[in-house]
Amino acid sequence: MINYPIARKKHEKTNNRANLGMTLESDIESTNTYYLVNDIAVIHKKPTPIQVVNVSYPARNKAKITEAYYKTPSTTDFNGIYKGHYIDFDAKETNSKTSMPLKNVHLHQIEHLKQVDKHGGIAFLIVHFKQYDEYFLLPSKVLFAYWDLQNDEKKGRKSIPYETFKNEAYLIKFGFKPRLDYLKVIDTYYLAKLK
Amino acid sequence: MINYPIARKKHEKTNNRANLGMTLESDIESTNTYYLVNDIAVIHKKPTPIQVVNVSYPARNKAKITEAYYKTPSTTDFNGIYKGHYIDFDAKETNSKTSMPLKNVHLHQIEHLKQVDKHGGIAFLIVHFKQYDEYFLLPSKVLFAYWDLQNDEKKGRKSIPYETFKNEAYLIKFGFKPRLDYLKVIDTYYLAKLK
Repeated sequence: MINYPIARKKHEKTNNRANLGMTLESDIESTNTYYLVNDIAVIHKKPTPIQVVNVSYPARNKAKITEAYYKTPSTTDFNGIYKGHYIDFDAKETNSKTSMPLKNVHLHQIEHLKQVDKHGGIAFLIVHFKQYDEYFLLPSKVLFAYWDLQNDEKKGRKSIPYETFKNEAYLIKFGFKPRLDYLKVIDTYYLAKLK
Repeated sequence: MINYPIARKKHEKTNNRANLGMTLESDIESTNTYYLVNDIAVIHKKPTPIQVVNVSYPARNKAKITEAYYKTPSTTDFNGIYKGHYIDFDAKETNSKTSMPLKNVHLHQIEHLKQVDKHGGIAFLIVHFKQYDEYFLLPSKVLFAYWDLQNDEKKGRKSIPYETFKNEAYLIKFGFKPRLDYLKVIDTYYLAKLK
């Protein structure tokens, strides 16, 4: 037991790392709830797709799933409507101080965001640089440019530099209500241009 | 083998009844796939929300969910983007020849569709009258009118009459490719008006 505090600290750290994705996700979800109850936008997180294999029906109880597996999603995690515009995005976190690795993004997410973009939706990523505690809205076109070049030996790279975020993405203010006001960025940098 | 065609027919009929919910859903999903691969629209079914309680990690295998429960969704099943418009709907089936019972629709679906409507999206139900094998696109405003009146002793009723579908909903053609071309209805009755 003499090592308990240290062990606990270690454990907490592990937990933090494991749940960091959860934290960004729950900050976005609480923001979406704020948008919903204040009649600002209707944006929801899609449930994680799960393949159900076995279900048991204990008497007088609700159905209990006893065997199931996670499936690969075919879209991003968040979508909805804001001021008549279709909104679609995913959330990413990185511990790096210098860049967001492209391996954080999956091919199906890129393909989906490209389709959304093509059909007139507003597509982006919300990226959390944990070391700076900064949140950025990264426009899809910046993401696509880096993604499409990544296998180019001369121009390609496997990550999007932090400098690119500073120059070509938009900082999202972290606050109390809402937690992450990403629609303010949409107002300023997307919708203002449409007027 | 002499009975094969009859047996097969019976089997199909049983299958049809058991899976009718599934069938309408899969007809819509195959339609959405058609829309996606032909670059017409990006509309997906949302996964069923599941609360995962226990997961085991068998060695060298992927995570196995061993205890989980179905959760009540907070939205409709389908949403996406078509020609820049946010699209949101649910699918319903009825065996009745005279009406669609309102108990087929859940309060959270009505609330969600109302929010979508308010924010400028295109909200509706796709309703299958199985006895006639007819598919209708029921505009949200017709649905809301019946829903909001259902507890009114004088004017209210617990279902939407088939006649109302004939007069105020739009027939969706059932075909081969795509199976249920509901976006054609959107073109004709929604987007044409916007021009």
